[in-house]
Amino acid sequence: MAYVAVMGHGTVGSGVVEVLRKNKDSIEKKAGESIILKKILDRRSFPDLPYSDLFTTDAEEILNDDEIQVIVEVMGGVEPAYTYVKRALSSGKHVVTSNKELVAEHGAELLRLARDRDVNFFFEASVGGGIPIIRPLNQCLAANEISEIIGILNGTTNYILTQMRLHGKTFEQALKDAQEKGYAESDPSNDIDGYDAARKIAILASIAFNRAVSYRDVYTEGISTITRLDMIYADEMDYAIKLIAMCKDMGDKLMARVSPLMIPKSSPLATVDDAFNAILVRGDVIGDVMFYGMGAGKLPTASAVVADVIDAVKHLKTRKKEVWADSEGYPVMDINDVKSRYFIRAAYKDRSDAVNAVRELFGDVNLVFCNDPIVKDEFGFISDEEPESMLNDKMAILSDNDAVSAVINRIRVEDNL
Amino acid sequence: MAYVAVMGHGTVGSGVVEVLRKNKDSIEKKAGESIILKKILDRRSFPDLPYSDLFTTDAEEILNDDEIQVIVEVMGGVEPAYTYVKRALSSGKHVVTSNKELVAEHGAELLRLARDRDVNFFFEASVGGGIPIIRPLNQCLAANEISEIIGILNGTTNYILTQMRLHGKTFEQALKDAQEKGYAESDPSNDIDGYDAARKIAILASIAFNRAVSYRDVYTEGISTITRLDMIYADEMDYAIKLIAMCKDMGDKLMARVSPLMIPKSSPLATVDDAFNAILVRGDVIGDVMFYGMGAGKLPTASAVVADVIDAVKHLKTRKKEVWADSEGYPVMDINDVKSRYFIRAAYKDRSDAVNAVRELFGDVNLVFCNDPIVKDEFGFISDEEPESMLNDKMAILSDNDAVSAVINRIRVEDNL
Repeated sequence: MAYVAVMGHGTVGSGVVEVLRKNKDSIEKKAGESIILKKILDRRSFPDLPYSDLFTTDAEEILNDDEIQVIVEVMGGVEPAYTYVKRALSSGKHVVTSNKELVAEHGAELLRLARDRDVNFFFEASVGGGIPIIRPLNQCLAANEISEIIGILNGTTNYILTQMRLHGKTFEQALKDAQEKGYAESDPSNDIDGYDAARKIAILASIAFNRAVSYRDVYTEGISTITRLDMIYADEMDYAIKLIAMCKDMGDKLMARVSPLMIPKSSPLATVDDAFNAILVRGDVIGDVMFYGMGAGKLPTASAVVADVIDAVKHLKTRKKEVWADSEGYPVMDINDVKSRYFIRAAYKDRSDAVNAVRELFGDVNLVFCNDPIVKDEFGFISDEEPESMLNDKMAILSDNDAVSAVINRIRVEDNL
Repeated sequence: MAYVAVMGHGTVGSGVVEVLRKNKDSIEKKAGESIILKKILDRRSFPDLPYSDLFTTDAEEILNDDEIQVIVEVMGGVEPAYTYVKRALSSGKHVVTSNKELVAEHGAELLRLARDRDVNFFFEASVGGGIPIIRPLNQCLAANEISEIIGILNGTTNYILTQMRLHGKTFEQALKDAQEKGYAESDPSNDIDGYDAARKIAILASIAFNRAVSYRDVYTEGISTITRLDMIYADEMDYAIKLIAMCKDMGDKLMARVSPLMIPKSSPLATVDDAFNAILVRGDVIGDVMFYGMGAGKLPTASAVVADVIDAVKHLKTRKKEVWADSEGYPVMDINDVKSRYFIRAAYKDRSDAVNAVRELFGDVNLVFCNDPIVKDEFGFISDEEPESMLNDKMAILSDNDAVSAVINRIRVEDNL
């Protein structure tokens, strides 16, 4: 018999309780123990729920209850989650969390604490919602040296980009649509500016390379500069534009970046649409393997949380091996030193001189004139691979050229996907 | 320190040895033990290999060696693998296998034996090659009641169908191409007739529903009847044709089937091309989750085998929970009772009479006239969903109609993917 408490009865927390109740029999069979939900922490009360008697507004009632062995932290945000989780682990309780802010900020410390207290700290749901990714990285791909992880890790931005691509919406229309559907929050910055994806890729990089990666070091660019016209150019060149979070082991340093990326339509990531997430892992033995599913939402996230609860109950007395707890941090490359290819759109005053300027700076690149009636006096091209600082210098020179009225946009391109 | 033996030094076996040697440091770190490859069974000798001294032609040298704790069986085929694995488990050795014939035929018995002897029997590589699927089903999706598994489980047939669709090859040309590339064997029946996929879906069904499913009960149809014209029709109707292995929990019975299937182009399975495999799992909590990667080949398969070896070494003294060992068998529905939609192609002598016959039998279906210059005097349509016995009766009546010269082909259609 295992006593469990849930901290936070919002979207994810109510989903966790629902799943624990709904699939109780099969869950207990798999856990090998009966699982008793003893308390739920929330500021609100829910008098109409059949389990309304479990609620408390006082965290102490849970943290000081010696009977409770597993705590599910699904409040989100760093505080007070951090304080509660630290106290729970310190007092020998296992902790399961879906909280990416918490794991990205304090993961290494909490893993160390869990190890010192001989308890488990699980956070499968913090990346990719319900998609199994952390266990597969730790266990199923254990034979591999992982070289690279490339993911669509934010469902909101993927939904917006899909609406723009398939339904011709502008960014603003698509964002509004996402907000109406509940995919985007009223302040959508955390999603659309890439910060959410940056936290998740930092967590994945820490696991894959077994060295703590700070999300603050991840170069992060959002999707608000992407326009319908970029989509049309991309389509003509057989690319899709996705917000891609990626990290790549460069030996002494890590390349880690969140940005819009043009990827070939033939890539398995290119057809990951709407609010779905997908994570492509490259290993030296397995090659490419991809995990796909709903990366957010009440029940998908609850699926991962409850799987962690089952694993915690199965391992009440044995700690599973910690990851990256003791590692030194993994230094992240300056984005200026990262080699990239840019898709660059330029508007011209004088076509022939502008083309000459491009050729002089970027070599013999293919120019693309967008096949759209509203597009006039501009073209696009894809540069060769160079360090970004050099590409940016060249873009500045191009934009100063008298024949060029403006460099309209630049989007990174990745063909090897 | 854990002593390991490998039985079989073919494609997979040599890959396993290569990976154990190449990634030795990180593998041992993850396993928490040094792993010593002590013996390799093969009829052949490999005098030029740096580990040539490990080879033996005598299985007894391995089975009777008390120092060897983990046996990797990668010989393939039921015998002598079955005899060796049974003896290994009986004498308290952990066994890791990639052998789908063995698991599909004797899985339940070997799992029981492993439990009785308190050892582990792992077979992640038997389905989906390197793709993690068995551990995710057992662990990561443990919060879910799984309702359905839909997979592209055979790389050879997927490669052939991709060649036909993208490069306009005939089935015969594509098969020859697959054989030249080493994707198909000289006797390709096991792949192209669907038997390989049937074994794999039976294994997945047994795990997902925790009841033994016999691959012999899985209705199995191969791809040799699929033509370029079927592909063209499918394309016009926004479908892709894939060899799909699926199983679905129908309550008292299981629906399990391997057959060519028209699936919407928007399905994540539709863009799984070439020799890649993908497995889509439907759970009541997570919704759809998909796993994608190389389903065969030396190193991808070795990736899964070595992950199992690491897990076995981590659990030399604790047995992981067995699945479906003691279950009663899960009865499989007669294909005649399964409700399906058929895409039916009919050639006519008299167009208007043939159309009338179709409408009378199948109702107000949409007729598709293939937009290809070589196609004359035929059309296709998709039926409503009905038990297959009824659809087959109607097809027989249609084909007897004087206005119809032949029912050319029928392919099942699944829209909910």
